[in-house]
Amino acid sequence: MRKESRFIWWIRWIVIVTALLLLGFTLGWFAKPTHPKAANESPSSKYLKDFLEGMQPDQIRQHLRKFTRLPHLAGTEQNLRYAEQIRKEWLEFGLDAVEMVPYDVLLSYPNKSQPNYISIVDRFGIEVFNTSLAEPVPEGYEDVADIVPPYSAFSAKGQPEGDLVYVNYGRTEDFFQLEEMNITVTGRIVIVRYGQIFRGNKVKNAMSAGAKGIIMFSDPADYSAAGVQPYPDGWNLPGGGAQRGNVLRLDGAGDPLTPGYPAKEYTYRLSLENAVGLPNIPVHPIGYHDAIHLLKNMGGQIPPNNWKGTLDVSYRIGPGFKDDFKSQKVRMNIHTNSQVTRIYNVIGRIRGAVEPDRYVILGGHRDAWVFGGIDPMSGAAVVHETVRGFGLLRSKGWRPRRTLIFASWDAEEFGLQGSTEWAEDNAKVLQERAVAYVNADSAIEGMYTLRVDCTPSLHTLVYNLTKQIASPEEGEEGISLYDSWHKRDNWTADRDAPRISKLGSGSDFEAYFIRLGIAAARARYTKDRKTEWYSSYPVYHSVYETFEVVDRFYDPTFKRLRAVAQVRGGLVFQLADSQLLPLDVNQYADSLGKYAQSIAREAQKHPEEMEMYGVSFDSLFSAVRNFSVAAGDFHERLQSLNRADPLQVRAVNDQLMYLERAFIDPLGLPGRPFYRHVIFAPSRHNKYVGQSFPGINDELFDIKNSADPKKAWDEVKRQISVAAFTVHAAAMTLTPPA
Amino acid sequence: MRKESRFIWWIRWIVIVTALLLLGFTLGWFAKPTHPKAANESPSSKYLKDFLEGMQPDQIRQHLRKFTRLPHLAGTEQNLRYAEQIRKEWLEFGLDAVEMVPYDVLLSYPNKSQPNYISIVDRFGIEVFNTSLAEPVPEGYEDVADIVPPYSAFSAKGQPEGDLVYVNYGRTEDFFQLEEMNITVTGRIVIVRYGQIFRGNKVKNAMSAGAKGIIMFSDPADYSAAGVQPYPDGWNLPGGGAQRGNVLRLDGAGDPLTPGYPAKEYTYRLSLENAVGLPNIPVHPIGYHDAIHLLKNMGGQIPPNNWKGTLDVSYRIGPGFKDDFKSQKVRMNIHTNSQVTRIYNVIGRIRGAVEPDRYVILGGHRDAWVFGGIDPMSGAAVVHETVRGFGLLRSKGWRPRRTLIFASWDAEEFGLQGSTEWAEDNAKVLQERAVAYVNADSAIEGMYTLRVDCTPSLHTLVYNLTKQIASPEEGEEGISLYDSWHKRDNWTADRDAPRISKLGSGSDFEAYFIRLGIAAARARYTKDRKTEWYSSYPVYHSVYETFEVVDRFYDPTFKRLRAVAQVRGGLVFQLADSQLLPLDVNQYADSLGKYAQSIAREAQKHPEEMEMYGVSFDSLFSAVRNFSVAAGDFHERLQSLNRADPLQVRAVNDQLMYLERAFIDPLGLPGRPFYRHVIFAPSRHNKYVGQSFPGINDELFDIKNSADPKKAWDEVKRQISVAAFTVHAAAMTLTPPA
Repeated sequence: MRKESRFIWWIRWIVIVTALLLLGFTLGWFAKPTHPKAANESPSSKYLKDFLEGMQPDQIRQHLRKFTRLPHLAGTEQNLRYAEQIRKEWLEFGLDAVEMVPYDVLLSYPNKSQPNYISIVDRFGIEVFNTSLAEPVPEGYEDVADIVPPYSAFSAKGQPEGDLVYVNYGRTEDFFQLEEMNITVTGRIVIVRYGQIFRGNKVKNAMSAGAKGIIMFSDPADYSAAGVQPYPDGWNLPGGGAQRGNVLRLDGAGDPLTPGYPAKEYTYRLSLENAVGLPNIPVHPIGYHDAIHLLKNMGGQIPPNNWKGTLDVSYRIGPGFKDDFKSQKVRMNIHTNSQVTRIYNVIGRIRGAVEPDRYVILGGHRDAWVFGGIDPMSGAAVVHETVRGFGLLRSKGWRPRRTLIFASWDAEEFGLQGSTEWAEDNAKVLQERAVAYVNADSAIEGMYTLRVDCTPSLHTLVYNLTKQIASPEEGEEGISLYDSWHKRDNWTADRDAPRISKLGSGSDFEAYFIRLGIAAARARYTKDRKTEWYSSYPVYHSVYETFEVVDRFYDPTFKRLRAVAQVRGGLVFQLADSQLLPLDVNQYADSLGKYAQSIAREAQKHPEEMEMYGVSFDSLFSAVRNFSVAAGDFHERLQSLNRADPLQVRAVNDQLMYLERAFIDPLGLPGRPFYRHVIFAPSRHNKYVGQSFPGINDELFDIKNSADPKKAWDEVKRQISVAAFTVHAAAMTLTPPA
Repeated sequence: MRKESRFIWWIRWIVIVTALLLLGFTLGWFAKPTHPKAANESPSSKYLKDFLEGMQPDQIRQHLRKFTRLPHLAGTEQNLRYAEQIRKEWLEFGLDAVEMVPYDVLLSYPNKSQPNYISIVDRFGIEVFNTSLAEPVPEGYEDVADIVPPYSAFSAKGQPEGDLVYVNYGRTEDFFQLEEMNITVTGRIVIVRYGQIFRGNKVKNAMSAGAKGIIMFSDPADYSAAGVQPYPDGWNLPGGGAQRGNVLRLDGAGDPLTPGYPAKEYTYRLSLENAVGLPNIPVHPIGYHDAIHLLKNMGGQIPPNNWKGTLDVSYRIGPGFKDDFKSQKVRMNIHTNSQVTRIYNVIGRIRGAVEPDRYVILGGHRDAWVFGGIDPMSGAAVVHETVRGFGLLRSKGWRPRRTLIFASWDAEEFGLQGSTEWAEDNAKVLQERAVAYVNADSAIEGMYTLRVDCTPSLHTLVYNLTKQIASPEEGEEGISLYDSWHKRDNWTADRDAPRISKLGSGSDFEAYFIRLGIAAARARYTKDRKTEWYSSYPVYHSVYETFEVVDRFYDPTFKRLRAVAQVRGGLVFQLADSQLLPLDVNQYADSLGKYAQSIAREAQKHPEEMEMYGVSFDSLFSAVRNFSVAAGDFHERLQSLNRADPLQVRAVNDQLMYLERAFIDPLGLPGRPFYRHVIFAPSRHNKYVGQSFPGINDELFDIKNSADPKKAWDEVKRQISVAAFTVHAAAMTLTPPA
């Protein structure tokens, strides 16, 4: 070749090679996606299936067996030992980190050298009858030390003596009825039966009415199921059993000495006189064997029929005894002490792979009145298995998108103290970062079906999840938990879906949901609310809450507990691992609409007053409509979200996460500074009941007895305004941010 | 060619082409960055330079001229017209959206048919002297209608009559001194000079002491600079001028009828009797020409020397007049009315390109007592120019990383109402999304140097920015604003940098910083604090605050206002556009350390009490050390941050943004529920003064006069505990999130 043609040849080659390289480069450049696939676009659902299937009934049984051998009351050595064991095992299961977090809180114990009891004394002051000092110990546990006898934690000390007055359940309406019958309890000792409302509300009502002591007993009408034997032959409460429990009215304060702040070593403590929620009268619980002795000779009026339990006594109201027994009095002997005591939460974590600064929490308590066979260890065993399940996934290389936090709370039985102190300690961080809180108290209280209480935005997730879980019931193989639940407990005529209830209080979600505004849920297996009328479950808070009561009666196959583990675990799995948070804002809108209708109907029972004082719900209805539109638009915009843009996804997730927070009023509900959720709070009259628009509802409840109706209706108007504003503000968080 | 060789040739070609394409593809694939360049990695600093240079003195002059022609008191037609004009012009400048946001708040105006004045009456009740009903109108404004005469907004109505008592500045210490002199003001009318503290604090002190009325006058000692002529020949206050102003004690409540909630149409309103912060005695301001008549015949004791102003009177304390004038009394005639009135904020936005859900706010008020030549229009003109500057950038295709919000607040003069209502209205969204708030009240109050008050985490940004801005002073060409400022106002012997002060209150940042915990700053041009002792600036809140007072005296070249525009605008530019938020956590740590030292020193003035009541600052010092370590670690981790990962960047920015929020205690300071910042609050005794650790400081200030020292020291202990906890909690937000 000539030099030139060779040159041209080279040029040609260079051009071709360059062109091809360039073409390839261009193809490569454009073929590569702008954003790497987000971690969560990985088959999260495959892992969910593995996770749900990984949790095993026999494992839950073993966990429950292991943690119910010894009493482990809050503040005791044994409860610390269990905490250490849990810490160790969670680390073995594969959590990234597990720490013990102590607080020094006010607890309350019987005085070991001066037992609590109640006497009938004769005219000379001689004790002619004394209630028992302890429950008969169940078989197999005879050698166990440190079984705390039945007592009312935080009772005042004292030995009041006087005539008894029977006040049914001790509810507001029961005391009203007594007033109408012209019976005063001032200076007397009231005796009430357990059930219907939280015992702390009974004590508060008794105090307000002027009683100088209160005795609470478990009536078989409220603590026995028909056709069931008392423990150990069945799961009913024996006559010698009694219900322990605290009688505080904390309204979310946590440790009574450090309201609003964590009970650390350096924390300022109120004096006992200024402590939050302590009753100032003696309180004591008894079983029905003892109750018969106190009730059988009572005099006074025959009560209304609905005041009568099923003991073989007349349930006369008193005051005092009848006939020959008139000169006898009742004396309470209460020596219970309060003391600042160290408690321990166990906090474990799996760090999130993509958004470590977003937290999904599964928490439940560990402390028990005695063995805690149901309360709380059925729940703690479920958490343990859930942690084991997540550990299995970890060993397969999985890591959740967001951070998972597991908590074993202490001192729940003393007023949700462990969980509340940790919430106070971490309030700032939780407000900014917590996506949801799933509660894990007792996992079973009946043998019928699932029960879920949760915030409306979680309804859809609960339904979707339970469709992926198998029914644990015999003969329902191949049927989903959803279907099993649906057929047993349909919501209402106008909503064909399994019933979901509002969250009340009485367990550790309280500070997270009602104070901090973190979306929350709880789930457990429950009884048939249509036929089983007894309160909670019969052996509740007695020594008979053993491993055996679950193993023999409530869940011999442990499949029900597995189903609960799958629900609780599945919820936190999906909340932690879905790219887009599985929260449904439209459901919140629907619920708000129903609550607004319902509260307006309640007010409309007073049409003249509404007219006279110019009370209108228009602003609230308008706010709810506005919220519904914002919710609908929000979900519509989600359709066109660019899921490949991590900041766009983060921004909408932030809107979803912060929605619940938007319902928090920093000024709190009237007189209850730590109940700050404008949509949900426990009823002032029974903390177990979840109330919607509590500010309005509480005021309306009291309005018929108000001394100053103008002022009361004015407060209703103010509360409507606060509710309307809050709903508007929440809607604003759902609109496009700029 | 043979078939085969042709075949081989083709194969060879295909292989070569494929290989080249593949090679190119691979190169292209890997050459492309995994993450697109974040918007802020673009030369943001180039745009900053353009932005700073784009703002022009003559434009600011024109804005100021335009918006000071007519009086525009909050709630008046003219102030609405200016709002509409601002809205229109902001849109023309290029904002994405501008809206008018109305609220209906409680304002207060003189009664047009019954003017307010003060009389001296003789023994027959005949008025022998009356104070003037208005200020002499400055030249050029003779035909202007609607100049509101000097008055004290929210004064109670009434016509109290009695003897005068002179109480110097009306400070806590002045009333103590009076007590020591055994002079009571109960049932008397006090006369105090303006200055030193916020007038609302004077009124509160007078009320607490039992006075039935209070007259405030501007003494030349406090409102005249030496060697300066009264307006219009200079910038001193003429004798006929008087200071308007509100006399509320809102403590951050905003509209007195709707504390905690925005004053919307549907909002529940308190009755006037229950309104927040209204004084219950008549209050009135006068100039020194009138004051001389009230003071010259006063009897009673000669006051301490530091009670004497520079009027040609004896400043006798009273009570009442001397000698022949003894029978004369003073009568106040106050007919001022409160009424719910519509106000308008103007809110403009530039949507953020990358993080539209992060907000940087530049806000300042528009309402003025009369023309507002300095207060606030020097600030509003600066905001206007800043918006124009951002508009210029927008026209070059720039868009900030985060959303910029511009606010023209209404009714600041009536208790920061426009800004507070908007903060209440948007509290949820702001808590979640607001990065910083820069305040824009009066941009100039002196001719000496820059003055900056800001949160500690902004110190570094302020320094870095002012190094990029030119000094506006004549003869300082080529010198930076930083150097000019530094040489005029060095911080302290141990900190060689320009002085930066703590934020107090008295302007619209209050709700954002002290209630919501949003990092905040303000900047203005100021006087020489070492030589110029008069309070604020002489013509403050008088009719003589005209365009001319700025144009002729304060800033004839408008370069000082330009420099302020560059500082305010530059701050919001950098906060909105930097990839990593320019907040310095180490500076917060340093400041906390100094504040803790200082408060402990204050307490140590009472060594016996500290010993007796067991008061220790150890927990606070320990918390501060902990915070310092967390801050240092945080900044160290920033070094290794992967800036190409948008979620990692977002996460640390969230930590930076939420740090200020972590200092908020939802329970508020004692008795001041809307002051919730544990580190900074206005002093209880003078809201203009920013106080660190206000809970502890306020208590220590009052402790020497406490009736129950044990209780008072107990409260100090509680406040130390709250402060220690809050600093710990803030440190926790800086640690790695999981």
